[in-house]
Amino acid sequence: MAGPAIILVEPQLAENIGTAARAMLNCGLTELRLVNPAPKWPSERAQQTSSGADSVLHNAKVFRSVAEAIRDLNRVYATSARPRDIVKIVVTPRRAGVELRQAESEGMRVGVLFGPERMGLINDDIALSDVVIAAPLNPEFSSLNLAQAVLLIAYEWLMAGDETPERILRRTSSPPAEKQHLLSFFNRLEAELEICGFFRVAEKRPSMVDSIRSMFVRADLTDQELRTLHGIVTELVTKRVGRE
Amino acid sequence: MAGPAIILVEPQLAENIGTAARAMLNCGLTELRLVNPAPKWPSERAQQTSSGADSVLHNAKVFRSVAEAIRDLNRVYATSARPRDIVKIVVTPRRAGVELRQAESEGMRVGVLFGPERMGLINDDIALSDVVIAAPLNPEFSSLNLAQAVLLIAYEWLMAGDETPERILRRTSSPPAEKQHLLSFFNRLEAELEICGFFRVAEKRPSMVDSIRSMFVRADLTDQELRTLHGIVTELVTKRVGRE
Repeated sequence: MAGPAIILVEPQLAENIGTAARAMLNCGLTELRLVNPAPKWPSERAQQTSSGADSVLHNAKVFRSVAEAIRDLNRVYATSARPRDIVKIVVTPRRAGVELRQAESEGMRVGVLFGPERMGLINDDIALSDVVIAAPLNPEFSSLNLAQAVLLIAYEWLMAGDETPERILRRTSSPPAEKQHLLSFFNRLEAELEICGFFRVAEKRPSMVDSIRSMFVRADLTDQELRTLHGIVTELVTKRVGRE
Repeated sequence: MAGPAIILVEPQLAENIGTAARAMLNCGLTELRLVNPAPKWPSERAQQTSSGADSVLHNAKVFRSVAEAIRDLNRVYATSARPRDIVKIVVTPRRAGVELRQAESEGMRVGVLFGPERMGLINDDIALSDVVIAAPLNPEFSSLNLAQAVLLIAYEWLMAGDETPERILRRTSSPPAEKQHLLSFFNRLEAELEICGFFRVAEKRPSMVDSIRSMFVRADLTDQELRTLHGIVTELVTKRVGRE
């Protein structure tokens, strides 16, 4: 899926265009449109700040009005902290991500408008848009940097189609230990602790053993890590014998 | 809820510290910690780029090592594109937002580590961390700007506690129209269309009426908008009469 066109309306700073291009490519978006950019275009400063997202800048198209920039689109979303005196559907960035993806899967071409750094979009632009996106940020400090705003929308679009597991234990090449090997380690450790007199109070032994086992089970060890633990016990035992 | 401490490890550029502070405050986070920042600190450039998040910079604490910076925390998350040769739980930013909030609600103090711009965190820092956060970005261009990475985590933390409705129709002061007023408008519009001969083909009339009604119902009009529509019909009818 190509994703929405990102349309920057009268962006004032070249570095914001560059950082926005980088944020787009981070999230797999490549179609950048500029409406009357203030910096001379193409811009070397934009290229420097894009940190390698040159292709996005190189393919960016420049337009003279919002109307021109949205001509070929079927659905336009407008980012705005505060749509004023205008009756309009308002969605969160998260919902926008889902809706943009849905529209595209129905064959629509979609785009998102971002206003100039200081002012944001004017009502004329918002009136032309199907939906307003407003992020529920800190009400006392809600103004996002332009490239940060682009990142949020691009990120939510990407996440709406993402199926990465939320939480995994990432291992090295060593596989997760089998329980039999974990149990042998417990037997060995507890035998060594017995020898060195760790279980001084006999009635506390069972609960101590359970706590120790729980700790190591919770760590979800690999084969390699079990070998390391065996090595640690061996060394500690040897040193102890040596000291006696 | 105070939210996680944001810990920047050896940040190289003052503007990234400033923009990170802005992103933090956008999402309601205020606790910034710096481990061996490269820029002279405090930094005027950081202040300029923070766009008003001065309080975050003013209260930032500087440390000489990661170990010092995390001493008082109970749980530490590390952001890393690629944890190498290390067995570690890896979560998405979305899941991290939920977990950080959960940990804090259980009384823990939490923090998130971000590595230097070019290199990211080293394994020594990742080994000290409970969990790694990896964002499932474009695999061919996954390196985020430092302040953008801070925004994603701060944003997901904020969203994990957010209850803003995903999609609403934001109105002006004018209330949604009652159906009786919508129906009178339909009656009037259809009567005028009858007069001017719009319904030339009698058998198509019912389906035409349904389409027209559907269009206006879908627009979910306010009282004010209905008045505007009445005004439009009046003007068009008057002009038509005038021309005959």
